[in-house]
Parts: sequence; structure tokens; C-alpha cells
Amino acid sequence: MKISILTICPEQFGDFQKSPLIARAVTAGRLELSIIDIRDYAPGSFRRVDDSPYGGGAGMILRCQPVLDALHAVRTPESRVIILTPAGKPYTQADAHRLSEESHLILICGHYEGMDARIYPYADELLSIGDYILTGGELPAMVITDSVMRLVKGSIKEESTKEESFEQGLLEYPQYTRPADYNGQKVPEVLLSGDHEAIRKWRQEEALRITKENRPDLLD
Amino acid sequence: MKISILTICPEQFGDFQKSPLIARAVTAGRLELSIIDIRDYAPGSFRRVDDSPYGGGAGMILRCQPVLDALHAVRTPESRVIILTPAGKPYTQADAHRLSEESHLILICGHYEGMDARIYPYADELLSIGDYILTGGELPAMVITDSVMRLVKGSIKEESTKEESFEQGLLEYPQYTRPADYNGQKVPEVLLSGDHEAIRKWRQEEALRITKENRPDLLD
Repeated sequence: MKISILTICPEQFGDFQKSPLIARAVTAGRLELSIIDIRDYAPGSFRRVDDSPYGGGAGMILRCQPVLDALHAVRTPESRVIILTPAGKPYTQADAHRLSEESHLILICGHYEGMDARIYPYADELLSIGDYILTGGELPAMVITDSVMRLVKGSIKEESTKEESFEQGLLEYPQYTRPADYNGQKVPEVLLSGDHEAIRKWRQEEALRITKENRPDLLD
Repeated sequence: MKISILTICPEQFGDFQKSPLIARAVTAGRLELSIIDIRDYAPGSFRRVDDSPYGGGAGMILRCQPVLDALHAVRTPESRVIILTPAGKPYTQADAHRLSEESHLILICGHYEGMDARIYPYADELLSIGDYILTGGELPAMVITDSVMRLVKGSIKEESTKEESFEQGLLEYPQYTRPADYNGQKVPEVLLSGDHEAIRKWRQEEALRITKENRPDLLD
């Protein structure tokens, strides 16, 4: 899979590219990750990527030309173009699965006050990672890349992803590890029983209970 | 404000600490950001922070002792302790406003398969940045820090945050910047009119239209 990230802050992706999941995927050839500096497509010695909004208002708006020229330089007929914006469709685990089947994702990071609205029609979809405002689309691009790459075959053990939150429409059941008694707080006895059927049943009930308590909306 | 992030991947926060919003806040004394390596609280030469789950299953679970010892080392009566987990309450802009009033946030990054459930009661709240699974809580901790710090007085112009998505219960209206005509795509005439009342009205109608189209749930 190929992922191209268009950003005005390419320097924010250094540590991310070194994170174990991403670095392993690149080394193993599962991922070709390129971080494209939109500024490289802005002409003039100032390489200006933003300008003030028509009609007034605070902040600066990303300009059409550098963003679209950067996009045209990397887009192919196989590319799926995604703009990260708080106005997008809420991104979920189902989207992560869907995008993990693509051969080339282009993620365009919005910034600050937003981007010129004439850029949006060039995207296949607009996605939002949640109902809050960030400085830019850089963290969202990392969130999407990380969640998608986890699902690409070979990245992590497949059994690991099957019982996670959202995969069965439920939050994950509680997990425990050693010691069995931590300052008087004990691990539920069933988990020490060795009775696999009882453990399976307990986990299912707990997943349902936690989902009911924390996220009743997921059960609708 | 003080933010302490407890993580087993402290090296993932280098670029984030250098990002303009965060670096400026630290320099100006608005933010004291500390990245705490949970491994420093794990004993023995292996500094083992995780172990396999009781009852079987794939993956490794963060152990109580190193996480809670790290927490006890930084917690004060003023701290608000937050665990980042997909099982948490969905984080929204209203939470960002609420947390921006705190004096000390402690963000505990979960990892991989999760953490020992006996850790959760030590948190004041569990938060999830969205309905998807990530490798760990590191990106969520950055998301929360960035969104909270934007709202701390002095970080960015106050007018900039007032008209953003979610602040009025609506997504933001479309924005445009120069040129007025980009390859035949024109900026809406009202924005060039200089008629402030007409512009205000158009923006309000557009914000409502976009919210209806993309996120009808926000209007409920």
C-alpha cells in the first residue's frame, strides 16, 4: 500500500515514521509512505501557501493552487483522495477496514482556519477523526495511517485485531495480567479457572456490560 | 497549565513538542509538558511493562505496578487523571474547553491490547478520541494536548476559535481566499460585496446547510 500525505508541516512526521508499526511496514515493503510538502508547490521566494479569507474573518486559508498542484503531482487513477477536516464524515473502524483495501491513499492535511472550499471537490471523501478542533490535519493523518496499517495483513497478529473494541460492535472486555492479587485487588476468579467456555462467556457478558455503561449508542 | 503524559513510547513525542503551538506555549510559560516513561518505573534489568492476559488471548497487557507507580509519582491533589482508551467517553470540543480550565492534566496512554483493568479506577475519567483502534494512546494524548492548548488564553487569537466547527453547534461555513477566479471556479459574489450583514447571513446559512448535509446528528 502507498500512502501520500500532503502537509504544510512535513517536519511533524519524523517520529511517526520511526514508530514501530510504521517503520516495520516500510522495511517489509507493506507500506510506501511519502510526506509531501505543499510549500514545494508554492511559487515565489516566499512560498506562500495561505492567504486571508474573502469576506473577512480571523486566520488564514490554504490556497487552491499549491494544494491542487501537489495533489495533481501524486494522484493516479488508483488513488483515493481524502481531505482531513472537522466538517468531514466521522471516521470509524469500518472506514479503517475499507481504506486498508486501497492501493494508494492521499491524505490532505487541512490547517488552522481551513482551506479554500474550491479544493474539496477534488477529494473522494472528507473525513473527521472526531468532534474537536486541532491545529491541523497532521495528527488526523497519523491517526488514519496508524489505524489502517494495523489492519494490513502482516502488520500485527490477526487474532489481535478480532476481539478489539468496535470489531464486534462492542467495547472490549476487561483484561488482567499478573499478579493475580495487586494490593488486595484480585483478578476475577473465572479467568484463573482454565475453563475456556466459562471465560468466553464471562468476556462476552462483560463486553456487553461495559458497552451498555459507557457507550449505549453503540448497541442501537 | 501542566500536562504530564505517561507512555511506554516517549520517543514518539519529540516532533510534537517542537510543533509551533506547543513550543510557543512552553516558551511563553503557558505550558509545562512532561513526557514520563512508564518503563522508568518497571523494576529489573528487563524493565518489563507488559505481560500476557489471564484467561488467554492474543497480545500483551500493561501491568498495574509500573503504570500506577508512575502515576503516584506525578499525581497531586490538583491533578485530573485521564486514561486514553477506545472504551472511554467520546472526546468532544466541550471536553477540550472543560480540560483547558484545569491546572494539571495527567494523560495515561494505553497500548496495544489494553491495560490491566485494575488501573482504570485510579483515573478521573476515560476518554476516547474516536471509534477506531490505534496502536496506542500516544496519538490520542497529542490530540487532546493540541486541542486543549489551542483554547488556553494566549495560544491563538481568540476570534479564531469562536467561529470554528462545533463552537456554535454547527460545522464551519466554506472559506475562500485569492484568486477570486481559479480556473473558472469563482468565489461566491456575496463574499466580494463588502456587505458585512449579507456576508454574515450567507455564512450562517451555509454553516447550517453543510451541517444538515454532512452531520445531521449535530442538529438534534
